[in-house]
Amino acid sequence: MRIVALAGGTGAAKLLRGLNALVSPGTMPVVGNTGDDTRVWGLHVSPDLDTICYTLGGCIDEHRGWGLRDESFRTLETMARFGEPTWFNLGDRDLATHLHRTRLLTEGKTLTDVTAAIARDLGVGQPVLPMSDQPVRTRLLGPDGWLDFQEYFVREKTQVDVAAVDYADASAARPAPGVVEAIAEADAVIVCPSNPVTSIGPILAVPGIARALEATDATVLAISPIIGGEAVSGPAGRLMAACGHEVSAVGVASTYAPWLDILLADSQDAALDPQIRSGGTRPIFTNTVMRDRQGEIALARKTLEALA
Amino acid sequence: MRIVALAGGTGAAKLLRGLNALVSPGTMPVVGNTGDDTRVWGLHVSPDLDTICYTLGGCIDEHRGWGLRDESFRTLETMARFGEPTWFNLGDRDLATHLHRTRLLTEGKTLTDVTAAIARDLGVGQPVLPMSDQPVRTRLLGPDGWLDFQEYFVREKTQVDVAAVDYADASAARPAPGVVEAIAEADAVIVCPSNPVTSIGPILAVPGIARALEATDATVLAISPIIGGEAVSGPAGRLMAACGHEVSAVGVASTYAPWLDILLADSQDAALDPQIRSGGTRPIFTNTVMRDRQGEIALARKTLEALA
Repeated sequence: MRIVALAGGTGAAKLLRGLNALVSPGTMPVVGNTGDDTRVWGLHVSPDLDTICYTLGGCIDEHRGWGLRDESFRTLETMARFGEPTWFNLGDRDLATHLHRTRLLTEGKTLTDVTAAIARDLGVGQPVLPMSDQPVRTRLLGPDGWLDFQEYFVREKTQVDVAAVDYADASAARPAPGVVEAIAEADAVIVCPSNPVTSIGPILAVPGIARALEATDATVLAISPIIGGEAVSGPAGRLMAACGHEVSAVGVASTYAPWLDILLADSQDAALDPQIRSGGTRPIFTNTVMRDRQGEIALARKTLEALA
Repeated sequence: MRIVALAGGTGAAKLLRGLNALVSPGTMPVVGNTGDDTRVWGLHVSPDLDTICYTLGGCIDEHRGWGLRDESFRTLETMARFGEPTWFNLGDRDLATHLHRTRLLTEGKTLTDVTAAIARDLGVGQPVLPMSDQPVRTRLLGPDGWLDFQEYFVREKTQVDVAAVDYADASAARPAPGVVEAIAEADAVIVCPSNPVTSIGPILAVPGIARALEATDATVLAISPIIGGEAVSGPAGRLMAACGHEVSAVGVASTYAPWLDILLADSQDAALDPQIRSGGTRPIFTNTVMRDRQGEIALARKTLEALA
């Protein structure tokens, strides 16, 4: 089965690690969100691509859920002396990734090339693609104006009332090489349990990707990141509400309605079956919380069974 | 007394630390060599300016003689995973300086601005100026072609036969703002005990600086880095020979002859008095080896006495 996965950060990476244990190497291209890419100290940081690569490469810090294991923060501490911002917690080892990426980009390589190189060097067994080689930047309208995603997420710790979300420059972006082709040729597309607004939303905002999802013969399955009216983690619930979506598995299904075939939702939400079904999506209810590696593999197996 | 110092790296920085203990803050601009500046991992590294700032800021690693105290190398270790060169030993704390410098340069600041900002943030009490805001790159012709200075010095550990030394792009460089003015207005110019070929040579290669030394009313004093026919440290002797200079205090004096008034040479070389004098330079012999802080201050005091 040819699979393509659309992925944000932490939640997606856990499912991908489960899937990676079940599928053959090289058979599951992962399209990662770059809407929350940012520049820190002049370096290009791609948080979601890194979380995917670090997780599949087996070097993620499991406790924090981001960054590299066995990390230290000596450069960060020293940057304070120069008045450089330190709220974006770049570790010394993590910094190597951003230095390497930035150097290659400065030399004219595309983010696609660079991401493939980093994934290879980290021993990632699946192709990892950015959604686009052009910059698309998720921004959120707070009471004091627009915030970049990382300002909202890391600096303000999501404690900002958001009135609107925007994907700046999305209209000028093109899908990265291979993204539309992979979706067109796939037997199945898996939309990971990621924030529909700030993880999957930017991917869909790249002109051509939503159309590819509508046009593909692949079965498209999403895993709901909302359980019982709340996000499993992070601000997905609040942001869905801010964007006028119902904060439920029904809301997730309706967000993806134009091209979604199957929604994997949590057993707690089984009562939503008729509502999801009435929107044209087939719901499957199962335990969607991944507490450990076994949980990741169990959800991955359920996902593959649903697609079979 | 208004003093200007021309400086390379380690040897210069020790004398400057001695002088700094004797003169008032802000009264001794230091013009630093940037001929051995380089790019590492896409970052602009200015080894001599950093050695000066770290030494005068009291944060240099005394044991190594370069870089910051209490250093670690976690980014470096991780860079190896991406196949990035690791022979230039950038520490995690040191990296903050290069990230900050590169970011400011990328934003359009000049090296003069950036160096002043770094010196201020590190608590350096004297103005530190680069010799030029334009790139001048010292390169050395070895058996297999031209090497950048850092390739020669750090990667090859100077174990290369050098046939020629060149200051690439020097003809297009201009003295940094304030350099020529400081020399013109000074009562004294101190040429630190640095390598005449690769530390002071690049400064003199910037059009206008040698002329300013010839034109100034200041007393110009140099401290010989050569004692008894050998360099106190580093490849100065071999490089002087490669450039056709006599490897002695006489050779140092003759290299600087057009504008040198006084050469402070080591007592071991007292027999060279007539030869130095016949070249038009007044020699003063003293102990020029700086083994500790007391030695630095003693040589600094001797230097100021000679200029008084």
